[in-house]
Amino acid sequence: MTTETEPRRYTPESLRAQILEILGAWGMRADSAATTADIMVDTDLSAIDSHGVSMLSMYEKFLADGRLDLTAEPEVVVDGPAFAVVDGHHGLGHPTGIRSMQLAIEKARAGGIGMVVVRNSLHFGALGFYARLASEQGLLSIVTTTTRTPVTSATGGTTPILGTNPIAFSAPRVNGEPLLVDMSTSVVALNKVKAYANKGKTLPEGWVFDRAGEAVTDPSLAYDLLTKLGATISPLGGPTPETGGHKGFGLSLMSQVLSAALSNAAGPLQSGDRDNIGHFFLVIDPEALNPGGQTAENVEHLLNAMQLNENDVKVPGDPEREARRERGENGIPIPAALFTTISDIAGRASAPIVLAEIAGPTSS
Amino acid sequence: MTTETEPRRYTPESLRAQILEILGAWGMRADSAATTADIMVDTDLSAIDSHGVSMLSMYEKFLADGRLDLTAEPEVVVDGPAFAVVDGHHGLGHPTGIRSMQLAIEKARAGGIGMVVVRNSLHFGALGFYARLASEQGLLSIVTTTTRTPVTSATGGTTPILGTNPIAFSAPRVNGEPLLVDMSTSVVALNKVKAYANKGKTLPEGWVFDRAGEAVTDPSLAYDLLTKLGATISPLGGPTPETGGHKGFGLSLMSQVLSAALSNAAGPLQSGDRDNIGHFFLVIDPEALNPGGQTAENVEHLLNAMQLNENDVKVPGDPEREARRERGENGIPIPAALFTTISDIAGRASAPIVLAEIAGPTSS
Repeated sequence: MTTETEPRRYTPESLRAQILEILGAWGMRADSAATTADIMVDTDLSAIDSHGVSMLSMYEKFLADGRLDLTAEPEVVVDGPAFAVVDGHHGLGHPTGIRSMQLAIEKARAGGIGMVVVRNSLHFGALGFYARLASEQGLLSIVTTTTRTPVTSATGGTTPILGTNPIAFSAPRVNGEPLLVDMSTSVVALNKVKAYANKGKTLPEGWVFDRAGEAVTDPSLAYDLLTKLGATISPLGGPTPETGGHKGFGLSLMSQVLSAALSNAAGPLQSGDRDNIGHFFLVIDPEALNPGGQTAENVEHLLNAMQLNENDVKVPGDPEREARRERGENGIPIPAALFTTISDIAGRASAPIVLAEIAGPTSS
Repeated sequence: MTTETEPRRYTPESLRAQILEILGAWGMRADSAATTADIMVDTDLSAIDSHGVSMLSMYEKFLADGRLDLTAEPEVVVDGPAFAVVDGHHGLGHPTGIRSMQLAIEKARAGGIGMVVVRNSLHFGALGFYARLASEQGLLSIVTTTTRTPVTSATGGTTPILGTNPIAFSAPRVNGEPLLVDMSTSVVALNKVKAYANKGKTLPEGWVFDRAGEAVTDPSLAYDLLTKLGATISPLGGPTPETGGHKGFGLSLMSQVLSAALSNAAGPLQSGDRDNIGHFFLVIDPEALNPGGQTAENVEHLLNAMQLNENDVKVPGDPEREARRERGENGIPIPAALFTTISDIAGRASAPIVLAEIAGPTSS
């Protein structure tokens, strides 16, 4: 039986249908809406709850603000043998992201390596989805993106300038799903601060600092300040070079340059009426380098070595794979507050509610 | 006047000559020795003292152990339009690294992007040297390498399996030298633990753990254990996922896979009689993507934004550039103990001592 604290669970199919109803009512092209719904449902199945259906309220806001063009189609504006530049024309990031990753895959298959950089995009969900797409086909990939809200400062600074600028890396394994790293280059992502607030849990000392450089450990205050440029999240490694904070800062700059400097997407302090988010997709085909070779075997050996005699070790990608299995069986949990949010969005768009609770023990 | 605590300083030219005398006496090919000496001196000029002339004692040991072939030449074993595989044939890493980076640069100039992966290499100094080489010519680069000594475990594990597996990233600026990130993916590099031991400074809690998972804060004990596989250094972010340790672990895996899995260099627990270090070089030519474009301007804008109204902010590459300026003027400091080590190595090789103290105020 579902208890008070356990959210009700819904079928992935009905969540997909619900997203399609809303995107359709908003006027999104049908092919783009299908792509977007697929990615959002996969993200919720992977338990990356911050980047799936919960993002609909932000997309609704983008639409109201005139920042989002749901009729836009991504356009390849430069096309070389091993690289391309794509303009997202201010459409939602998911269709642009998929098109760009597919292009990078095609180029890697043809010539061993393919790189696509993107400008004028918007939020495209979790990077890991795109990276996994390549590695499920036996390829390696690196994906980076800029993000919209400035929350991270330079090491030694107190001004929020960079986003959480994530980096994903994936590689094929022989057995099981790919190795998949998907990480913000800040010590935590913004949504994790919110999760602490929701749980009423004090933040660790080194995570958030106000503009005077004082640590903020009250999670609600921290989240509030962060959304108003009144605080910063430390880079991965913490606030000082002592524990490697300068390395996280360096990684954040790497993500920013790859995602935006190559494609002329927006840099810090350059946002205009519309966002201009940038992405970077790099794909490598190991078969080209090493025909009949052992790259996947080498990755498999590496990950097995990490887990040899180490019962507590999970390798990157394991938790999300386990979540996809569990949620695929038991349904996707949607807390009551989120259900209300989705219902309200559907109501405003004059779309029906089609979410269906899963049949079986958890909903009996 | 030079005080007891300030090391004497020597001319870069005489340090280069000293390295050449020793490498020559060891029987290294003249062109390879010149390349190696150039890189080692630049590294000492950049104040990366752990990776310059101080490495000669390790190279001497490699030679004695039969792990190093100073007559080897790097060989291009696979050559595609946008990629290549290089076999270092167990030569010292510097000539192999330079040859590989130059090849990646040529391919990027020709087709927008170039990737070279390497096997059967050895220690090649600091990654940043190779990355900077690309960006001084207006190109972006990513360089990774495996390292010889297992010191890092998986998050949640206690077995040293991965090396400090560094990553370098560089991008051109308009004014001044390139943006240059060069970082181990462990919370600190092994030599930093040694530096704490030399200073008698207690290690921070989260850095080193023994095989039972207990923190080791005595730096001498920690260094001793680390060299005997009796302890681990935490990944960047620390020992637990709470502060992002799983991200550092993910980055370490990324460096390992790029450097070794593609080229069939050695993975964990695969060392044989000879080391089989792997490297990865990726170069991007922004002119190909965006002819007459603004990549360097975008990088310049980004770094200037980071320093706007922030007096304490240094961007990655600044400290090394400042060191090159200062040491270029005042000479390279060589502590008495290191001078003795170099003299002893020269003596064993029957090479003359040609190190010359710098003329001027600091040596008067």
